[in-house]
Amino acid sequence: VINAGKSQHNEDQACCEVVFVERRPSLRGRLPSREGSGELDGGRKGFYFHYWALFDGHAGSGAAVMASKRLHLHICEQLRDLVDILQDPSPPPICLPHDARAGPTEPSRVPLTEDDGDVPNDAVPRFHLEKAVSHESLVIGAIENAFKHMVPQIERERVSQRLSGGCCALAAVYLMGKFYVANAGDSRAIIIRNGEIIPMSREFTPETERQRLHRRFVPPAFLRPELLGKEFTHLEFPRRIQPKELGRKMLYRDQSMNGWAYKKIEEDDLKFPLIYGEGKKARVMATIGVTRGLGDHDLKVFSSNIHIKPFLSCFPEVRVYDLTQYEHCPDDVLVLGTDGLWDVTNDKEVAGVVMEVLTSYEPNDPCRYTMVAQELVVRSRGVLKERGWRLANDKLGSGDDISVFVIPL
Amino acid sequence: VINAGKSQHNEDQACCEVVFVERRPSLRGRLPSREGSGELDGGRKGFYFHYWALFDGHAGSGAAVMASKRLHLHICEQLRDLVDILQDPSPPPICLPHDARAGPTEPSRVPLTEDDGDVPNDAVPRFHLEKAVSHESLVIGAIENAFKHMVPQIERERVSQRLSGGCCALAAVYLMGKFYVANAGDSRAIIIRNGEIIPMSREFTPETERQRLHRRFVPPAFLRPELLGKEFTHLEFPRRIQPKELGRKMLYRDQSMNGWAYKKIEEDDLKFPLIYGEGKKARVMATIGVTRGLGDHDLKVFSSNIHIKPFLSCFPEVRVYDLTQYEHCPDDVLVLGTDGLWDVTNDKEVAGVVMEVLTSYEPNDPCRYTMVAQELVVRSRGVLKERGWRLANDKLGSGDDISVFVIPL
Repeated sequence: VINAGKSQHNEDQACCEVVFVERRPSLRGRLPSREGSGELDGGRKGFYFHYWALFDGHAGSGAAVMASKRLHLHICEQLRDLVDILQDPSPPPICLPHDARAGPTEPSRVPLTEDDGDVPNDAVPRFHLEKAVSHESLVIGAIENAFKHMVPQIERERVSQRLSGGCCALAAVYLMGKFYVANAGDSRAIIIRNGEIIPMSREFTPETERQRLHRRFVPPAFLRPELLGKEFTHLEFPRRIQPKELGRKMLYRDQSMNGWAYKKIEEDDLKFPLIYGEGKKARVMATIGVTRGLGDHDLKVFSSNIHIKPFLSCFPEVRVYDLTQYEHCPDDVLVLGTDGLWDVTNDKEVAGVVMEVLTSYEPNDPCRYTMVAQELVVRSRGVLKERGWRLANDKLGSGDDISVFVIPL
Repeated sequence: VINAGKSQHNEDQACCEVVFVERRPSLRGRLPSREGSGELDGGRKGFYFHYWALFDGHAGSGAAVMASKRLHLHICEQLRDLVDILQDPSPPPICLPHDARAGPTEPSRVPLTEDDGDVPNDAVPRFHLEKAVSHESLVIGAIENAFKHMVPQIERERVSQRLSGGCCALAAVYLMGKFYVANAGDSRAIIIRNGEIIPMSREFTPETERQRLHRRFVPPAFLRPELLGKEFTHLEFPRRIQPKELGRKMLYRDQSMNGWAYKKIEEDDLKFPLIYGEGKKARVMATIGVTRGLGDHDLKVFSSNIHIKPFLSCFPEVRVYDLTQYEHCPDDVLVLGTDGLWDVTNDKEVAGVVMEVLTSYEPNDPCRYTMVAQELVVRSRGVLKERGWRLANDKLGSGDDISVFVIPL
């Protein structure tokens, strides 16, 4: 991690943990796992997951610091009910027993006790319409809910803990042979395997989320005009409109359109657009440049009483990479980086640095991955010259905080 | 087209037209096109587009009949303002002149009259933030708006014209070297080029639109509970819940989740799910199996006062295929079909029939494409045997209306 000067203090935070998920006592014995498996850590039933995460804070580091200390604990909490289910090769039961606290260890997996009588037994699907749910989608659901549970916690504790600002979150969970990469915001993860680049996330920005943002609040904003204030229009125009242009026809599109059409400019169209600007400068209500993440409970449009939070989403997109499906060599890595990295160094350049640095170390030298991460940060920061910090190609270096994980596969 | 017996009368409708788009008089002379171009049809300024469309009706053929007679006229209407702009190779102007009716023919393209004074001149972009809008996206916008304008028309005329039901719509517009394929519903278009299958649409069903349907009405349904009635839950469960299962933990997901998690079943969870069923049997509020299209203004949930229309979308997804980018041979075709075709004959089988039939005719025989379409319909209907209509593989033939266009590229 490096602070490159945009903010006085570093607003990026990182976390790397091995987390033990202990089976919740209430479920003990109800759904026994296969013999011996899951019996870890001195008799405690559970499993481990490996965890790496980056939190790119804005308007203060409070939310980023808190998320870096808590998110993996929420993931752990969500997984605790799943300890036996995830270790059982049969499909997850759709319905769990009535009172998980009731029985002692049972000899075999019976989802229902006998006194449940005519409640349908999941072992014999009696409904024709029954969706198959995979183990993988349970882990995805657990990670999604962990993000969701961070929200009220930050909201509650932001006063007592003096938590300021918000943050993007990018988390990688390694569990039972699979990487789950969860992204909410504009950080990015890629896998570099045998020189090939495999995207493991996509960025959520005002531009990529145009339709979600507009749909989310039309018609709700129509019903709840206080959300948008009287300040914003949900229509998109290719540029700001001048009052003198009233009555002329201008290109526009609404929340449902992908194409463009002309409309006659009316008073209402002169309002500020919900989304304005392009690329790194795109903003929701002229205020925030990312649309997913944690925190931002106090964020308002400048000199107004319009809250931004309802427009933001805490939900990550989770992508899965199954390590068991491929052969990997010591040079295959997962790279996590905040936008401080990706703004100035693209996927291909990152892959180039990875190759270059790794080949200069012995394959069994454990330092080699750390050296790649350092090199990526240093190169993206650049060198201080007379005309500011410059990259090797003489372009301006990143002025943003830069954080990188390089994780061998 | 064939009616295969599901409904007494054919509810599929088709349309195939060459449409002349005449420049709207009000714009005449304002944005003159290049010399000579667009001077067609005995001096009238304009251009032609070619048009094919399929409308798969449900609960009556009224909406399908009306859409088949009108949609291309709405597309024409939307394109009339664009006659000069689309024929001008320079990027579309972001803002049109103040009063398009004002001037006579002008010698050169001047978007603003002189008395507009200090209104910004589009020839010199004075805003740094100005989006580039392509000609292609104007055509997409025109088609999107044509679909949108069908809605109030059907709503208005449904009483006097006795229009019943709703319909899916799939339309292909060939204009200036490009195919625009617009789809709202569960019909499908594919291009078969040199034996390769190129999807030109995707289906909109309760399953593919799960997140849109849920997001669309949470929180609005929360604010407007009359939309969902007291009958439905926005949560998804892998199967229906039995009252006896109250208090047990069941797999669920909400509108934001892609994964699944367990929750304790409460009273509210016993309500009927907004989306229920899988595949061809999936329904929105137990009522309708498609989520986009036209009509359905009177559709209500069975024995209730809950309207379905607010959950449906009229907006098509428009995909573009640029004919000028590829070499085409006489066997390369665009196939449009209603779900009566695709339910029993997959993309690969369709491509096989196309190859098989086309090779049995001379390349310059104009009947060969019609013969392919007929063969596709007949094969999907099957042959009447003792145990009903059977396909070549002895599976049941399609009982739905089957409509197919085969269009040489």
